[in-house]
Amino acid sequence: MKRLVLLGASGSIGLQTIDVVIRHPDEFEIVALSVGRNIDALEEILSKVKVKAVCVQEGNELLRLQSKYTDIEFLSGDEGLKTLALRDDYDMLVNALVGFVGFVPTYEAICSNHDVALANKESLVVGGELIEKALAEHKVNLYPIDSEHSAIFQALQGNRKEEVKNLWITASGGAFRNKKREELVDVTVEDALAHPNWAMGAKITIDSASMMNKGFEVIEAHYLFSMPYDQIKVLMHKESVIHSMVEYVDGSVIAQLGNPDMRLPIQYALTYPERKELDLPRLNLAEIGSLHFEDADVRRFPLLALAYASGKRGGNLPAVMNAINDVANQAFRERKISFLDIEDMIIRGVNRVPFKKVTCLEDLLEANAWGVEYAQRYIVEKGGK
Amino acid sequence: MKRLVLLGASGSIGLQTIDVVIRHPDEFEIVALSVGRNIDALEEILSKVKVKAVCVQEGNELLRLQSKYTDIEFLSGDEGLKTLALRDDYDMLVNALVGFVGFVPTYEAICSNHDVALANKESLVVGGELIEKALAEHKVNLYPIDSEHSAIFQALQGNRKEEVKNLWITASGGAFRNKKREELVDVTVEDALAHPNWAMGAKITIDSASMMNKGFEVIEAHYLFSMPYDQIKVLMHKESVIHSMVEYVDGSVIAQLGNPDMRLPIQYALTYPERKELDLPRLNLAEIGSLHFEDADVRRFPLLALAYASGKRGGNLPAVMNAINDVANQAFRERKISFLDIEDMIIRGVNRVPFKKVTCLEDLLEANAWGVEYAQRYIVEKGGK
Repeated sequence: MKRLVLLGASGSIGLQTIDVVIRHPDEFEIVALSVGRNIDALEEILSKVKVKAVCVQEGNELLRLQSKYTDIEFLSGDEGLKTLALRDDYDMLVNALVGFVGFVPTYEAICSNHDVALANKESLVVGGELIEKALAEHKVNLYPIDSEHSAIFQALQGNRKEEVKNLWITASGGAFRNKKREELVDVTVEDALAHPNWAMGAKITIDSASMMNKGFEVIEAHYLFSMPYDQIKVLMHKESVIHSMVEYVDGSVIAQLGNPDMRLPIQYALTYPERKELDLPRLNLAEIGSLHFEDADVRRFPLLALAYASGKRGGNLPAVMNAINDVANQAFRERKISFLDIEDMIIRGVNRVPFKKVTCLEDLLEANAWGVEYAQRYIVEKGGK
Repeated sequence: MKRLVLLGASGSIGLQTIDVVIRHPDEFEIVALSVGRNIDALEEILSKVKVKAVCVQEGNELLRLQSKYTDIEFLSGDEGLKTLALRDDYDMLVNALVGFVGFVPTYEAICSNHDVALANKESLVVGGELIEKALAEHKVNLYPIDSEHSAIFQALQGNRKEEVKNLWITASGGAFRNKKREELVDVTVEDALAHPNWAMGAKITIDSASMMNKGFEVIEAHYLFSMPYDQIKVLMHKESVIHSMVEYVDGSVIAQLGNPDMRLPIQYALTYPERKELDLPRLNLAEIGSLHFEDADVRRFPLLALAYASGKRGGNLPAVMNAINDVANQAFRERKISFLDIEDMIIRGVNRVPFKKVTCLEDLLEANAWGVEYAQRYIVEKGGK
């Protein structure tokens, strides 16, 4: 029985993780979980799984919840997330939080000798260097849940790292892949949320449309697989059937394919190194008929180019990039800025911030604060126009 | 240093094996080799690699060769092939022979405790049951060189056999994949030899056009991977870029991709479990643009259906099927019969032969002789019309 702590339980990945757990009652148990503000979703979850502790984002409902669920311990806020990550009665943290808030639980789980299954890519984008160091000091494993990184992880099995020539991350191109840059001026939130292949949370769907998400995945791959940026390539593949690939020194390419259903990479992270039955519709390539590929044009997707540059330089740049994106993504969803403002503010911000090395959590918090402040000022000035 | 015996050195796979060996002079050494009747090719090969022993098909040039190459031991015929397989100064037999003649060397190499890299699929088609038994008794490995089986072998690495749901063998469909059955009546040898993707030997190119080759590959996969026939599927894929795939119980599909160049699977069989650099043009999916897939229509390809049925029933049927195909393939190339006669004679023959179990080499020889005789009679009768 593998005991899990699940952070971000009411989000898209969180709910799918619960589905995988419920499908395998003899394999997995959720010891503790967190949700954000969605208390209705929490109560729905608690009707399905029996847990010892719950963290919610804000404290105002704590008393009511505590009196209703007397055998559950309730916590709140970022401190509550950290407390869950530091528990000693579980085997693996499943981090399905969205944004910078995911970093501390990932880091603390590793430092307290727990395996981590990571859907929160921001953990590695903002704090990859710190997590790399922590992984080297603690004998734990970091498993990817992102479909692309799970594909690469699967395609690496049975091969040696020094035999890898390139990692190929596939990219659907998101909602706007068929639009030219000049056609992006007037796109709406609804347009951006219409991802052609995947049903995902709102934040990551917008990140897909801007290709910031693909940029994050490049940085994530760099840290997950200890691979230089020059050996991480992006390939446009509009069907999202080949989830990613590994090219080896002999010219052989190993790819992982599947229907776009996150329960597959979630379950693989949970069952690794084994595979278990998962009763979902199976991939039917004859029905799909054809798969298409194109080079990724970095002029068309400047945030992808920025992610490579920020990742290579390192230090505070990826954390600043992520912080501005967090704010910009939300501001776009709240209709305060336009779609092209997202990339404009990120690029300007990353080019303006003074470079600093990151050696501890405080450095990250500082970088994040700089990015948030910069982004908020940008939005205010934009609104003033 | 891995010491090889290479059978069928002057054929397509043989010459590509020599190319791989020459590219890695510190890794591989050819101890002994065989060719058929092409003595010019042999002399060309001997100018490049230094061997201890050579087997040629016929004895008439033995004296001349022996007096020219005094430090090489010369042998001839099937007995010579067997003698090479039984040598004790090598590590791996590379069997690139074409047809039934490949069986005995494969079998004898296994029984004398040698690993085998197998391009001669007929070894497993005709004698799969005997080879399975021999492999169980001797602790040696059988590595596939066929591109499809190498792909499956690669896609199985790092996974457990009981987690496999289906093997997916891809099929280009050969030279006539765009023709309907009624359009096959008048096709010529030249038409059949024009394989759209692969440059291969003449026999296998004809077998590809008739899909007998794909049927053989199904049987080969059954024995190589101990997989029931119901879990071996054929998928039409005209670009021959995805060389084959493994579908797992969780719905994940692992595929191996590459340019159609046999040096890659040859080298993987030789270097396994490692990979070594191979300086060939690399796969460029963006340049290829798209990959296509279709269900395999067994009514269009009756020899594929026959191979499944013969394989499932087992006994002498696959050996009879192979023997008739060997003769039919050659008769078609010699313009004695039409393309559709190939499948007509194979289907009639396999339906007519009395079923027998195969428990020893003599049973195989008998089945082979029955098939050859049946096929020769068919051709004579056909010619008499």
